[in-house]
Amino acid sequence: MGNNEIQIRQLVENWAAAVCNHDINGILANHSADMVMYDVPGPFQSVGIDAYRDTWNIFFKYTRSGVFDILDLHITAGEDVAFCFAKMRCDDNSNSADYTPLDFRLTIGFKKVGDKWMITHEHHSVPAT
Amino acid sequence: MGNNEIQIRQLVENWAAAVCNHDINGILANHSADMVMYDVPGPFQSVGIDAYRDTWNIFFKYTRSGVFDILDLHITAGEDVAFCFAKMRCDDNSNSADYTPLDFRLTIGFKKVGDKWMITHEHHSVPAT
Repeated sequence: MGNNEIQIRQLVENWAAAVCNHDINGILANHSADMVMYDVPGPFQSVGIDAYRDTWNIFFKYTRSGVFDILDLHITAGEDVAFCFAKMRCDDNSNSADYTPLDFRLTIGFKKVGDKWMITHEHHSVPAT
Repeated sequence: MGNNEIQIRQLVENWAAAVCNHDINGILANHSADMVMYDVPGPFQSVGIDAYRDTWNIFFKYTRSGVFDILDLHITAGEDVAFCFAKMRCDDNSNSADYTPLDFRLTIGFKKVGDKWMITHEHHSVPAT
């Protein structure tokens, strides 16, 4: 495993741990100001870091802290551009009184700025019903 | 615009044109054998080029040829890894008698193999309802 892949894996694990803890500053630690988010619920897209922050307020409303698991992470890393995709699991109560497991698909795009990997794009989704 | 970005843009435009024409060989021209697809409808994921090919048979069933538009393409390309994301539009008749426009989100991951860019990951989705 190359050094860039190790750095990306650590970044994604730290980000997921921050989501687990509902720690918004940790979640935003490695995102570029102009990042574009495609989230599980609408809107169609969220452009910029402020709109990205808002998506997590919706997430926190319907999910428990402590559950945000990376089940299967695939990383492709070059010297200054990388992407990864993963099967993910959280649990939510948007459709029932109790929390139930929700599996979703995650793709992230990264760009190295100076010596630091930054997230410039996230795509979270579930299959359409 | 760098040379790699120009190559990626051309590849995506050729791929979208092949989808427009329901040309399965053109669609598959630049995909790696082990690519992983997250599609708009289920299944949750399609692993490998044969499973990827099958996703297009579903697509062709519900869509007209001639409509598969790239509305807004953002490319981030390094020397040997790249990704792009875009707002896309097709039309389908899976939910009504007539064809109606369907906007969806697209993210693609690329890896250069020798001198050729190859698609190793696609993520297509609509927001959950």
